[in-house]
Amino acid sequence: MSGHLAVVGLGSGDPRYLTPEADAALAGAQALYGYGPYLDRVPTRPGQTRHASDNREERARAAAALRHAAQGARVAVVSGGDPGVFAMAAAVCEEIEAGPESLCALEVVFVPGITAMLAVAARIGAPLGHDFCAISLSDNLKPWELVERRLDAAAGAGFVIALYNPVSRARPWQFGSAIERLRRHLPASTPVVFGRSVGRSGEHVSVATLDRADAVSADMATLVIVGSRETRVIPRAGRVPLVYTPRAAAEMSA
Amino acid sequence: MSGHLAVVGLGSGDPRYLTPEADAALAGAQALYGYGPYLDRVPTRPGQTRHASDNREERARAAAALRHAAQGARVAVVSGGDPGVFAMAAAVCEEIEAGPESLCALEVVFVPGITAMLAVAARIGAPLGHDFCAISLSDNLKPWELVERRLDAAAGAGFVIALYNPVSRARPWQFGSAIERLRRHLPASTPVVFGRSVGRSGEHVSVATLDRADAVSADMATLVIVGSRETRVIPRAGRVPLVYTPRAAAEMSA
Repeated sequence: MSGHLAVVGLGSGDPRYLTPEADAALAGAQALYGYGPYLDRVPTRPGQTRHASDNREERARAAAALRHAAQGARVAVVSGGDPGVFAMAAAVCEEIEAGPESLCALEVVFVPGITAMLAVAARIGAPLGHDFCAISLSDNLKPWELVERRLDAAAGAGFVIALYNPVSRARPWQFGSAIERLRRHLPASTPVVFGRSVGRSGEHVSVATLDRADAVSADMATLVIVGSRETRVIPRAGRVPLVYTPRAAAEMSA
Repeated sequence: MSGHLAVVGLGSGDPRYLTPEADAALAGAQALYGYGPYLDRVPTRPGQTRHASDNREERARAAAALRHAAQGARVAVVSGGDPGVFAMAAAVCEEIEAGPESLCALEVVFVPGITAMLAVAARIGAPLGHDFCAISLSDNLKPWELVERRLDAAAGAGFVIALYNPVSRARPWQFGSAIERLRRHLPASTPVVFGRSVGRSGEHVSVATLDRADAVSADMATLVIVGSRETRVIPRAGRVPLVYTPRAAAEMSA
């Protein structure tokens, strides 16, 4: 089988985040598959077909792309950020495992990208400078009780927490509930970073404290970073503050 | 003050990971600061000075770069992977907070990069496809008991775990001890991915199971990803297997 599938991370928005490896994978593809708004970020190239699909159709998109590649084509699936972080890479693997044996023979490569938490962290300082975790607040694919258990474990053990998919139209209360849960473990003054559309038009980065974080509006384009007890804010006259987590954790209470 | 400091992520090794934003930041700098082997990855440019320093001299390097920028120069500090993940960004923020007030007026930007866990994950499939965390096993900057507490919390709550800095000459036993600890929480068959020098010469990626993971040799150039109970391996004839964590977690025991 001569087909080839690349699962490509576009990075967080702007072309300045697009790695040369990702650019080459996109340029070499005969067909592109992806969520429409992600495909729109890729320059059109002559002779290349585009197959847009809706959000939340990851499995169907992965299946269609794999079928196309299995016919001998060079196919790329595009993903925002990094394809391996709450994105298309796992959906493609799920489809390979569930599909016919022949899919295992297909050449499949994954091309990493700048995922949202790295882009947002870079905009504000170094909030992920010590141990951290990433949790998707979407409970489409896991029970909410599991999200709560993970919030408890992470905050209790001193991890900085990056929250992906904090809010959507179908999930209006989960973000507020998560913040409320985190208040059981962390002081009211804990810094919370909101990065909306980082690297895209309408970019907005702000810092709140945990006691007021649920009053800040967030949406599917927002990535939230909740600090640990050690995370610090450096005010700067005339500039946004710097938020960072020191490399050293001195105490067990962290 | 007209100086400018950029803290730049080179990505994990190869230039194919270097983003256009990072490339531009390096090209525009009058002086580069960094750990020698990272500086060696940056093409030389006429008129640009280089200031190499040893590993574990992050604070001194950050201070020197800030002083240089405060004199009005355009300075870049280079970091492997992403500067915000166990790298130079936090050291620069620490130095700004500890230094004279004038440092807060300096223009400082952070340029994200492909951190090792994203590069390693992409090489093997999608092991970070569900909630995950990143822990540095270096106990230079935190007590080992805190590392153990975080391993317990993360494995117990079903996070996939990326282990940075698993082994160094001065820390020979920590990795084995961490694996032993994780066996309290996870089945013997849990997949463990070892990515050594990904994107560089001598790249080697392999998969073991948790019961044998401490027999695999790791070093400072190795990034280890320990799966959760849900992480799966897809064997492929004539190819390395795919390792991935499904997007859905069905059960609370995860």
